[in-house]
Amino acid sequence: MRKVLALAAAASLAGCATMPAPSRSARPAVVPGAMQFLYGSAEAAALSEQAYNALVDNVRLRIAGPRPSESAIVLPADGAPVAASCGDKPFAAVFDMDETAILNLGYEYNDAASGAAFDAGRWARWEAGGADKVVAVPGATAAFAALRTMGVTPIINTNRNVAAATETADALARAGLGSFVHGETLFLKGDADGKSAKDGRRRAIAARWCVLALGGDQIGDFSDALEGTPAARRVAASSPPYAARWGRSWFILPNPVYGTGLGSGWDDTFPADKRWTDMQGAK
Amino acid sequence: MRKVLALAAAASLAGCATMPAPSRSARPAVVPGAMQFLYGSAEAAALSEQAYNALVDNVRLRIAGPRPSESAIVLPADGAPVAASCGDKPFAAVFDMDETAILNLGYEYNDAASGAAFDAGRWARWEAGGADKVVAVPGATAAFAALRTMGVTPIINTNRNVAAATETADALARAGLGSFVHGETLFLKGDADGKSAKDGRRRAIAARWCVLALGGDQIGDFSDALEGTPAARRVAASSPPYAARWGRSWFILPNPVYGTGLGSGWDDTFPADKRWTDMQGAK
Repeated sequence: MRKVLALAAAASLAGCATMPAPSRSARPAVVPGAMQFLYGSAEAAALSEQAYNALVDNVRLRIAGPRPSESAIVLPADGAPVAASCGDKPFAAVFDMDETAILNLGYEYNDAASGAAFDAGRWARWEAGGADKVVAVPGATAAFAALRTMGVTPIINTNRNVAAATETADALARAGLGSFVHGETLFLKGDADGKSAKDGRRRAIAARWCVLALGGDQIGDFSDALEGTPAARRVAASSPPYAARWGRSWFILPNPVYGTGLGSGWDDTFPADKRWTDMQGAK
Repeated sequence: MRKVLALAAAASLAGCATMPAPSRSARPAVVPGAMQFLYGSAEAAALSEQAYNALVDNVRLRIAGPRPSESAIVLPADGAPVAASCGDKPFAAVFDMDETAILNLGYEYNDAASGAAFDAGRWARWEAGGADKVVAVPGATAAFAALRTMGVTPIINTNRNVAAATETADALARAGLGSFVHGETLFLKGDADGKSAKDGRRRAIAARWCVLALGGDQIGDFSDALEGTPAARRVAASSPPYAARWGRSWFILPNPVYGTGLGSGWDDTFPADKRWTDMQGAK
């Protein structure tokens, strides 16, 4: 295993050393490590199957028991966030789209191969033209089908743009995830309250649906309340009231490639009292 | 969210551009992206809490029902691998150690800060001297305690070296994971059959225990049978008979930093028919 580490480390350094590439013609020698993991590994596929298996099993258990009263959606209130109520609303499960329901293989290939910096125009062109270059996240198609069979409606809450609503629904359908309708089962950036933060859309969805599960790859796909430094957000995710939700009503997919899972500095990542010095090292 | 992507991408490129550093005194500007994610993010903490919550919930359900007949350990046989039998053996759950039960913060800090290539001697010094520089994986201490309360014994099956058996048990105890005894509840590299592959040790454990769950960060922590190219291993992890095990009897922890989750090439990672070209790109 440690041998594999050495090879992997060497590979990712080699990848780093040659990127960013000045043009598409000079593709780096190796795929960036985080993309090797998310898009190329059995381990990331297993993490995804695990999240979707746990989600379907938990939803099945909840609808087999007494009718749920509490939504998986937790909304800001005076004091602590409060779970929305289910009443007699129809059952739904709410998912982010990118790197949660689908993998953006086409865009990420272009990103890695070109080494180009992020560009909102390029992302918009991808939303408009990439529908045939995505695949479903491992486990997602089977889970969406199982939910529909149980009478639970999958709803997508994404920050893709309203301008590409049709192409976004097309990408989901081509990936085998079924049919989604803007404003009904597909919510895009700015819907409900004009914001990119998702609590406003979650509030609108919770008004019409009894949401039994949330799925996403970013903390913001679950609540806007986990804020602060990376270290503070990490502690909050592992503490009450959030720690007990993971794998029970909130289901997270792996994404080390982009997003709020990146950005921690040395002090956020490695506490001072956990730093080791190799006395015989540094030859 | 895409804005965060841009920042994260810039950050990881900056990190790449300055590593490897020639000496410990020249620490890179930023933490490698995969370490930011695994050791510094709320998202990776949530993935870990999710795996441990799902494991404890599934074990609780299994011991509340009819006595399980099948072990979570699947062993090679003539033809397809076969689940070991439980008989009336005592209940156990088997875990890998590194990046499954504990996070090697001290070692990984040294690795990232020094930029040194992998060196078996440095890793051996870490096993012998790093017991106070590790932390438990988020969710692991609560899960190990819950398992013991249910009468399920946590067992560690790791490729750490027999030479450091005492220090390895010490590291687990200091992380709050409890007491482990070499040969009883702690299995090290080479135990049982002299190999680093773990099926031999799993066979020895299954002979004495009814194993209700396996936990690990590498596919080899579950079975030695998933072999081949990264793409072949990825397909196998998402196909019968393995796909249904994730989140039910096999529980995987995230690790984009090292191991068999890394190493896929361009063709393994990005199928030719899923590569997108930005026609207006490459200015």
